[in-house]
Parts: sequence; structure tokens; C-alpha cells
Amino acid sequence: MKTYLYPKLAEWAALTQRPVQKLDQLRTGVQQTFDLVQQNGDAALVELAAKFDKATLQSVWVTEEEVAAAIPQVSEELKEAIELAYNNIKRFHEAQREPVQQVETMAGVTCWRKSVGIQKVGLYIPGGSAPLFSTLLMLGIPAQIAGCREIILSTPPSAHGSINATILYTANRLGIKRILKAGGAQAIAAMAFGTETVPAVDKIFGPGNQYVTAAKQMVTQMGVAIDMPAGPSEVLVIADDTADANFVAADLLSQAEHGPDSQVVFVTNSENQLKNVQAAVADQVAKLPRQTVAEQALNNSIGIVVNTLDEALAFSNLYAPEHLILSVEAPEVLAEGVTQAGSVFMGHFSPESVGDYASGTNHTLPTNGYARNYSGVSLDSFVKKITFQQLTREGLERIGPAVETMAEAEGLHAHKNAVTIRLNKI
Amino acid sequence: MKTYLYPKLAEWAALTQRPVQKLDQLRTGVQQTFDLVQQNGDAALVELAAKFDKATLQSVWVTEEEVAAAIPQVSEELKEAIELAYNNIKRFHEAQREPVQQVETMAGVTCWRKSVGIQKVGLYIPGGSAPLFSTLLMLGIPAQIAGCREIILSTPPSAHGSINATILYTANRLGIKRILKAGGAQAIAAMAFGTETVPAVDKIFGPGNQYVTAAKQMVTQMGVAIDMPAGPSEVLVIADDTADANFVAADLLSQAEHGPDSQVVFVTNSENQLKNVQAAVADQVAKLPRQTVAEQALNNSIGIVVNTLDEALAFSNLYAPEHLILSVEAPEVLAEGVTQAGSVFMGHFSPESVGDYASGTNHTLPTNGYARNYSGVSLDSFVKKITFQQLTREGLERIGPAVETMAEAEGLHAHKNAVTIRLNKI
Repeated sequence: MKTYLYPKLAEWAALTQRPVQKLDQLRTGVQQTFDLVQQNGDAALVELAAKFDKATLQSVWVTEEEVAAAIPQVSEELKEAIELAYNNIKRFHEAQREPVQQVETMAGVTCWRKSVGIQKVGLYIPGGSAPLFSTLLMLGIPAQIAGCREIILSTPPSAHGSINATILYTANRLGIKRILKAGGAQAIAAMAFGTETVPAVDKIFGPGNQYVTAAKQMVTQMGVAIDMPAGPSEVLVIADDTADANFVAADLLSQAEHGPDSQVVFVTNSENQLKNVQAAVADQVAKLPRQTVAEQALNNSIGIVVNTLDEALAFSNLYAPEHLILSVEAPEVLAEGVTQAGSVFMGHFSPESVGDYASGTNHTLPTNGYARNYSGVSLDSFVKKITFQQLTREGLERIGPAVETMAEAEGLHAHKNAVTIRLNKI
Repeated sequence: MKTYLYPKLAEWAALTQRPVQKLDQLRTGVQQTFDLVQQNGDAALVELAAKFDKATLQSVWVTEEEVAAAIPQVSEELKEAIELAYNNIKRFHEAQREPVQQVETMAGVTCWRKSVGIQKVGLYIPGGSAPLFSTLLMLGIPAQIAGCREIILSTPPSAHGSINATILYTANRLGIKRILKAGGAQAIAAMAFGTETVPAVDKIFGPGNQYVTAAKQMVTQMGVAIDMPAGPSEVLVIADDTADANFVAADLLSQAEHGPDSQVVFVTNSENQLKNVQAAVADQVAKLPRQTVAEQALNNSIGIVVNTLDEALAFSNLYAPEHLILSVEAPEVLAEGVTQAGSVFMGHFSPESVGDYASGTNHTLPTNGYARNYSGVSLDSFVKKITFQQLTREGLERIGPAVETMAEAEGLHAHKNAVTIRLNKI
């Protein structure tokens, strides 16, 4: 951890820099994958699964038998934990439903908006060492609540051509029937453009490696929406002297273990606390199974001592972290001033991992400084908000002259005439 | 207007096609503009205003004197019309405020989300023949309500170096102080990257020509958010025999006058109504100042006769129009089934132009089929929704074991440890 004692304001911007993502150089390769999937459809997915996943697929789709066989493989303890998380996430996201509210903006002019589920969505869940069933919960639950008509899950197969049992269990719990055995850019291509068996979706969600990130970025220029731009995961912890250094160290390490490019930032108003946390990190990291990964991330991490907690918060707002942990005595006070962050964890008993799994908030959050201008995934991400308006005859009489005047001033006479022709008839 | 009588379902998809936008070929030129603005800042804006707007600028910023001089140039009638629109738009968008709602997802685990204004936003308003002060209202009002700290307006100067008086009047009414005299890709570059006097913004809103559209698309890959992807404006009108053919024709023409690439679609369950509307269009278009533009758009427009209003709605949902007008006897019934549209105008007395100017709904809406997967601009577009969570000691005891189990199952031991280390201490 590189440490900075009382950096000057002019130095702050440099400390908030993220590593530059070099996605441009991947575009040519990703475009080749796109072309292959567009030309050969499912056959391309089978070919690419053999190439990248070393899997021989009979079908690109998971069968009912595979799902049925997976269910008993998941321990009862894990099933109960998933159930608890499911209920909390569902409760929090159901509270995000926006009731239809009719607003009579003036007598006889009524406007409202209505949320309608995006019809077809694709959820991408990466494979690899950790089966991210928690991400499936985070995406599948709001998709369900939104009433999306078609939900496609795509995740890469193992070398045996199988999908992780907990992923299948979770998909089944969510009522997701269509599970595609595809990873990487080919999964994004299949969902964006469709194949003979995969429907083209309207919006694609989920994390992934740099090929997935580049592919998602590219399909946004081809009519498909995505959840948000992606970058390495991040945490910023603000701690004062009331924080337990071991708790803080554990929080920093839970971010560091994600990957060597994870961003870990520690800000405190206490030099002493910085020393304690550094010692606790050194102690705990040695015991982690993912020690090597965490150490690489820690090499790029920074620890900053500032004069006051207000300064710490100002730094955090400039950094715009994906996760912000307020390990301070009065987190409520500090939280009031948060202007740029994905999700905020308040006090000493709210570690990031509770939000990653089970508290109810969504863990798909803006990284890479995008907390400046994007929200995390929520029910909003799975709906379109359609506006409606209905005027009575009298309403049109009342509003019409203003519309005529404005249309005239903008030089749009046909716009004006659409009102005039009605007013003349009334 | 090309007409199609009872097209088969298999033919529908072809009828919903939009013209392909060829933005890729503009990228090189736009990148050159980006480079110039990044290298030379305001001097580049002055240079490009001379080149493209034929304007000699003393400063790239509008002065207080210019604003003061503009105010008396706007007629009292127009000021009153703007005031009426302002109040309606404000009322509708204020109703979109989301109150903070604390959800105790389980005992001791409290989650909520809070909307915080995006700190710095840029509003682009095109110049040209029509000064779109209505768009400035549609963007400026929600930006104000959201509490965006810095609002930059950019709009191209006339050859005299001036900005349209109504635009200045409206900006002043909205409390927008920083008005940049820049158009085209250079305006987007200035707001995205900043110059010595222009602050780099977090999100850019507003319509524009193909260079502006390409530039906005490009900056989304550079850390800046935009309102939504853009395409030519569209209307789809569904009418039955109760509709007045002259009203429908006026609505179709108010779309057609926008530009030669405007998309105009008419769907009816009555062959007779199609004939009447065609006759009314022919009659009205001859009287329009923008007759040539409207006629070009009409050449590409389509009129479709289907068997039932339900079929008409199904076609509309597939088309996903920016504006949908339901000129039918019972619009409430049809409106229930709308799944893909930007904004819906119900009944015979709700022409699109009331929504374009003054009813209260936003007129910045998804075009080009993006009503499948994007919402129109609303208060949501100007805020980030930050989630918060706070656990009590007991809350962590209750949720902790599930988090430990799930983290373990995902192979993320440091995530587990952040809980364990706390539970051990409690």
C-alpha cells in the first residue's frame, strides 16, 4: 500500500486516477467473433466453446435434466443462505416499484408515467474459478419484478460441457428456463444479434473479462443497451480512530482478493489508524487462499491520511468509488455529504460483503469513476418509463394558445396547426 | 405515403425498419475536432466558430449584457407561453422525485437509496432555422430540480456571433448562467474534455445533427455519459373511424416537417380512414411553409391498414415509436397494452405538439427503435441513485452466517472473513 500523508488538494486528482483500460485493441478480435456468430449461429457457439472452454457441446442450451441433476448437489445450508439473500434482495427491489401517479399539470391536462419491463433481457454470468451465483440473484430478481418477458442467462461451460450446480440451482429458483452455454464475446454476440435458437435481446447485463466488456461496449453502437460501462471493482474505506483496524483490514482485503487490478483505497484522519490497518492487512493477507491475487492488488492500493473526516469525504466524492465504507463513529453525518459513490456501507457492522451477497442492495455498481454519472443496477435498469398524456377538450382550449405561440416562435407551423385545427373545430 | 393493406405478420419486421445511420464514416472528422479542442481549448472553439458558423467571437461565453439585451426582444405573449410550459413541465418532473424510503430487509438490516444530482451537466441546443428553446426547457427544468451543481448550455452562434434571444431568455428564466457559443462536435468536445474556461461535465444532453450524434456516441467511450442514442424523430398514429381525418393529417405533418428523414407511420383498422387521411394530408401539406421538407418525409412514410385495433397496437409495439398517438374512441383500453413507446398521446384532443411544448411530459425521447430499451429524459436522467445500508450488531449476527456460506461457495474467503472477524468480536 502506497501511503500519502496530508496530500495537497492539487495532488488529489492524480490520486483518483484509475488504470487506463485498453479495450480498443480488442475490438478487431471481438468483431471477428461477432461475424462468426452472425454467420454461423449456434454452430459458431459450439465451435468457440470447443476452442475457448475446451468443451464439447451436444446443445448450446442447458437441458431440464441438467437442472434437475444440479439441485441435489447444492447443500441445504447454501440453499438456505440463497433463500435469505433472495428475500432481502427482492424486498429492497420491490420497494423500487414506481406507482403510476397521474399529475394534472393544469385543468384538463393529465400526464403520468408507467414502468413497463424491457421485453427481452440477457444476463451474463462469467465462469472461471468463482461461480457468481450472487450476481445471478442481483440481476435475475429485478428482471423478474420488472416483468421482463424473456430472460436469457448465458454462462460459459466447464471443460466437461457442464454448468456449475449452484448457478443452475439459482437460475431455477429465479424461474429462468433458458440457460445458454456460452461465454466471452460469443455470448454477448449471441444475445445481441440472436441465432436460430437464441432470441436477440434488448439489453444485456452482467460482469465479465475484458473481451466481454469490449463486446458489451461495441453492441451499444448496434441498438442494444447494456447495464453500464465496466471496470475493475473498487472500495474506498474511510475510518477514524473508533474503527477496529482488523475490521478495516478485512474489508480492504475482501476487495483486494477480487483480482490483481482491484482498486483499494483507504482514507483516515489518523496516522495511527493507518499504521494499525497496515499491520492488520499484513497479518491477514498471509492467511488468505487468494493471497497472491490480494498482494498484487495491494501493491497498487493507496492509504491516505487527511486532516479531517470532511476532507476524507471530499476525497471520496472526487474519487467516486463503487463501494464506500464509512467506518466512523457517526456515519450518518458523513453519509449526508456523499455525492458520488455506488453503494455506501455505514458504521462498523456493515462490511461490503453483506451488500455483495445478502443485505438487499444491488452489487452491480458503477466502477472506474462512473459513480459520477451512472447509478448501480436497480429495478429501473429493467424497465422503460413510458409517459402518457390525455387532454380534455377544455384542457386543449386552455393549453392550446401557448402551444401555438411556442410552435410559431420555433418556426414549426405544422406543430401549431395540429392545435389550431382542433381549436377551430371545438 | 406508401400504403400496405393487411400486411402479413411475416412482413411486419421489414415495415418497422429505420434507415441505417452512417455515423462510422464521421468518426475520423469528429476525432480531428476532438483533438483540436483538446489541444487548443477555447482558441479552437473560436477557430471552428469562424469556420462553421462564419462568426467572429470575442469570447466563447455569452455575457450578462447579451442576456440583458435579449430579454426585451421576446414578446410578452411568448414569455407567457413559456411560463405556462415551464410550470407544467416543472410540476410533472417534480412529481418524479423519489423520496428516501428506508427498507428494513430483515431485523437490523436497513437499506435505502437516495437520488443525488449529477454534479456537472452539459445541455446542447442546436442552432439553425428553428431556435429550440422548448428543448432547453425540457433539459434545464429537470437539471434544476435534480440539483445539478453546474449546468453548461452550449449552442452555436449566428454569423453575427450572437445567440437567439428566446434561447437566452429561456436560459435566464432557468437560472443558467454559463452559455457557451459553440456548436457541432466542438461543443461536445468542449463539454466532455473541458477547456481552460469550460469545465468538463459528467453527462451531456440534447439533440443535434449527425456530427453531434457521432460525437456524443464517441464520448460515451471516454467516461462521459449521454442522455440516449439519437436518430430521426418519429410518430406512429393509430386511428379508428371515430378520428377526425384532418386532426390525424395535422399530427402526421407536424412530424413530417421536422426533417426529410422524419419517420411518419399511420396505422388504422379502416380503409376508408386511410383514404380520408391521405386526402387531408395532401390538402394541408400544400399550405405549410416547410412544405418541401414535409413532402420529402412523406415520401418515406407508410400507411397501414390492419384488421383490428389490437393488431394496430401489436404493430406499434414492434415498431417501438418515439411518439404514439391513439386517435381512437377508447384510448384508455389500447394504452393498457402499450409495451414499447417513448410517449403516448391519448384521444382526439392530445396532439403530439402539446407534449412537444407544454403538457408537462418530456419531449426528449428514444427514437430509432430505442423505445425498446431506453426511457425518455426525466428527472432520473439527471441523478445518480446511491444505495446505502446500515446494520446493527444484531443485524450482522442475523445475516452474517448466510453471507459466510455464500462467500465460501464463491471461493471468496476474504469476503467471508470480513464477516467472521466481526462475528468473533461481537
